[in-house]
Amino acid sequence: MEELKKRILKEGTAIGTEIIRVDSFLNHQLDTKFLEKIGQEFAARFEGCTVDRILTVETSGIAVAVAAARYFGDPPVVFARKTMPSTMDSNSYAAASRSFTKETVSVLRVEKKYIRLCDNVLILDDFLAHGEAATALTEIAKQAGANVVGIGVVIEKRYQGGRAKLEEAGYRVESLASIEEIRNGKIIFSE
Amino acid sequence: MEELKKRILKEGTAIGTEIIRVDSFLNHQLDTKFLEKIGQEFAARFEGCTVDRILTVETSGIAVAVAAARYFGDPPVVFARKTMPSTMDSNSYAAASRSFTKETVSVLRVEKKYIRLCDNVLILDDFLAHGEAATALTEIAKQAGANVVGIGVVIEKRYQGGRAKLEEAGYRVESLASIEEIRNGKIIFSE
Repeated sequence: MEELKKRILKEGTAIGTEIIRVDSFLNHQLDTKFLEKIGQEFAARFEGCTVDRILTVETSGIAVAVAAARYFGDPPVVFARKTMPSTMDSNSYAAASRSFTKETVSVLRVEKKYIRLCDNVLILDDFLAHGEAATALTEIAKQAGANVVGIGVVIEKRYQGGRAKLEEAGYRVESLASIEEIRNGKIIFSE
Repeated sequence: MEELKKRILKEGTAIGTEIIRVDSFLNHQLDTKFLEKIGQEFAARFEGCTVDRILTVETSGIAVAVAAARYFGDPPVVFARKTMPSTMDSNSYAAASRSFTKETVSVLRVEKKYIRLCDNVLILDDFLAHGEAATALTEIAKQAGANVVGIGVVIEKRYQGGRAKLEEAGYRVESLASIEEIRNGKIIFSE
């Protein structure tokens, strides 16, 4: 998605060789008009697929999933929780996910009633890094007996291997911008 | 908002005398078509007000703010962070907010560049309870020299006093459903 790449180059900041900040439109401030374009692009990529449910994970994934839902006919959006609020049912599917950025391990949880057997689930998220969160979401879908239609991410950091891991496990991955590496502080996109 | 009240009665669960769970459309699973109606209702309530920016706080507030933004002409949406990600700038406005549900105190943070002097800021959130999060957001706006247009919440738990506190501080509060109390496990709306 050319407009996305332009914005990453213009507004994004590379931190070290691993981290990319896009706080001006995706992770802290949200450009909702642009998020709609992102949603439309996901719908184009997954055209022809039945999507009964969009699955994401808090925090920034929520904005992406909510903006995209209308282009999939407004299926339910479910966001996995990283912490267990006192209001949450303990009757949940759960899978661990390590965050390399935060150096923590979270257990992602979705209440059982919010994913159904045979649901066609599309996983959406803001970033694909090492694939930990996406893998946890596929595990949650698997526990529910749901079918994973694919995994759509706004920005893929290909150098962190998430795509390779997910594709090896048999999942279709669509990223709207794929970053090959950060070289001398510069963001280099994949061909 | 009648449809909202009906859904709260039908799908909501009262826990004890304080907590209301509406996980089926607002806090875990999201009904994006319904969130759009909620967004439209906020736009009707604040009609005629200039809104340069929508301010909310992770997590569920993001869904509400993103769905509402289009009805305000897509101003930037900014969500305050409860934790400081390693990708976040330390140059932030900050205010403490106590969560009675989680029994924790969080420091809400917004990077300085994402609220500007004289911005007309609309605060949106899913719940108004004791008013801790909303008050912290007004403090952040004040630190930035921004003007708070008002505070819009989907569900107000009036018995927890948030509205009284905010109105006393001079803020306009709009809630789409106001709960007077939980009596014998039953949700009673305000007149």
